[in-house]
Amino acid sequence: VEAGTGPVTIEPLRFADGALQVLDQRALPGEERWIRCETVEEVADCIRTLAVRGAPAIGLAAAYGMALAAPENRVAAAELLRSTRPTAVNLAWALEQCREAPDALAVARRLHREQDEADRRLAGLGAQLFAEGTRALTHCNAGALATGGYGTACGVLRAAWDSGRLAEVWVDETRPLLQGARLTAWELRQAGIPHRVVADAAAGSLMARGQVDRVVVGADRIAANGDVANKVGTYPLAVLAERHGVPFYVAAPLSTIDLATAHGAAIPIEERDPGEVVADGDAFNPAFDVTPAELVTAIVTEAGVLQPPYADSIGRALAG
Amino acid sequence: VEAGTGPVTIEPLRFADGALQVLDQRALPGEERWIRCETVEEVADCIRTLAVRGAPAIGLAAAYGMALAAPENRVAAAELLRSTRPTAVNLAWALEQCREAPDALAVARRLHREQDEADRRLAGLGAQLFAEGTRALTHCNAGALATGGYGTACGVLRAAWDSGRLAEVWVDETRPLLQGARLTAWELRQAGIPHRVVADAAAGSLMARGQVDRVVVGADRIAANGDVANKVGTYPLAVLAERHGVPFYVAAPLSTIDLATAHGAAIPIEERDPGEVVADGDAFNPAFDVTPAELVTAIVTEAGVLQPPYADSIGRALAG
Repeated sequence: VEAGTGPVTIEPLRFADGALQVLDQRALPGEERWIRCETVEEVADCIRTLAVRGAPAIGLAAAYGMALAAPENRVAAAELLRSTRPTAVNLAWALEQCREAPDALAVARRLHREQDEADRRLAGLGAQLFAEGTRALTHCNAGALATGGYGTACGVLRAAWDSGRLAEVWVDETRPLLQGARLTAWELRQAGIPHRVVADAAAGSLMARGQVDRVVVGADRIAANGDVANKVGTYPLAVLAERHGVPFYVAAPLSTIDLATAHGAAIPIEERDPGEVVADGDAFNPAFDVTPAELVTAIVTEAGVLQPPYADSIGRALAG
Repeated sequence: VEAGTGPVTIEPLRFADGALQVLDQRALPGEERWIRCETVEEVADCIRTLAVRGAPAIGLAAAYGMALAAPENRVAAAELLRSTRPTAVNLAWALEQCREAPDALAVARRLHREQDEADRRLAGLGAQLFAEGTRALTHCNAGALATGGYGTACGVLRAAWDSGRLAEVWVDETRPLLQGARLTAWELRQAGIPHRVVADAAAGSLMARGQVDRVVVGADRIAANGDVANKVGTYPLAVLAERHGVPFYVAAPLSTIDLATAHGAAIPIEERDPGEVVADGDAFNPAFDVTPAELVTAIVTEAGVLQPPYADSIGRALAG
């Protein structure tokens, strides 16, 4: 399966005229609003406040942010950008790519291009895991908005649709910030892919009724043993998928894998403002959860579909 | 453990001066708005539109609705009220209690009083299942608002708090209509019980971190074999609880048990307006799900704490 080669029409990040233009994902789908960042502080604000979100996309935004820093301020700029969000390892990874480069903008542009290429490769590989008529369920948004390219989990869905293997997508609304209902549904609508939004809590009954054939999600960090941090709510889906014999796929570029993190318990889980959950009252708002490797059927990367045991397959993929 | 004997300060239903006053639960917690129903049609509207909700409370509302019907219209009135919502069996049960009664209002008042008594008994029994320092998780609202009495799952929480066994409650916000974040949090706040609201999808990570000692929920219908229909999202909690060795309790009066329903697959599951999930776009909105009896640690009723196998313990409780 080859991922569609048409132009990516959804571009969350554009660099031109010495500034990074960030598509404000908080305003989607109602409004297409762009934020012009001329300083590294403005980019950091965009990442912290979720104007740009998605593990690969915040890595790219950080790389472009480095291009806005004066050469003598790059150490402080990297520190500021790294501090914005703790869970997605792509952020630290992208900053590392820029660290010694004489031309940060050239690095950012290269990473951006490579992300799109990686997305398309993994999308094509992932689509081959779908039989004709597949009803897939996804959580949060791992689409073009989240990567700056073709999308990871949503890229797999797009490639599966283009190759006639996808019947419909169940879209978890993804509380508290509704990235599924707002962003994934918007992307799927633009791609002409049939979909229905469901409350996150409805995924269990969909699986119990036999209405889900595949679960496919993105990732914010994958530990060396294959444990996966992703948007809170991913772990319950994996537990339910196992119970119902539904394959559970994680689609992510190799840059999401962190060999320095031995297992999921070592991944820092961001806790966000309780006000995202309730306007008034006490709340607890962990943004991510950890799915143990034993519940992951396969990890779809641009270097191939990794199978358990992940310590081995991840090692080979990163060595290769 | 004895459930608190103080006055129930939260009364969703009041009958006086020939009319049923319904506390509009759609407006809570922001506003305490009362709807005056002088006709059976107005009561049916309140049930259908969720001004009053919760399996026992809609049963009581229907009984009061029968008291508003002229004697010659009672068959049609019962049919109208029964048609409002399909899943909660308490609705049909309450109508059955009124069917042949010469004085429907007297029956409604008796059912109302008996509900409060049953709630208090089961609350006391359920609280004994909690050890000191218990952190409990609940879903949706099975409190005074849902029963017209002391509450079932929330009644257990109140009695556990009053007897010093409860440390904190995790409140699932319960999308799409947020009965947890709006109603349960409001009830717990009035009772002075520490609680934090979480996105429904966060329950898995709370359990994985060992932060949940008990799950307690209500029920809309319990089949003869112990399968439980309750607010959508209950089934995933039961699956997660089993994985993490967390006891999963269902608290419900005997009137929620339907011997005519052999098992969960025979329970009609209401599908509500997709507009409750997304304002604009395609959505699927099942209001309930079914938790198989094998995942239920115990069913707490006013006649005792029922243990598996439920076909036996339910039969004995209803015969007794």
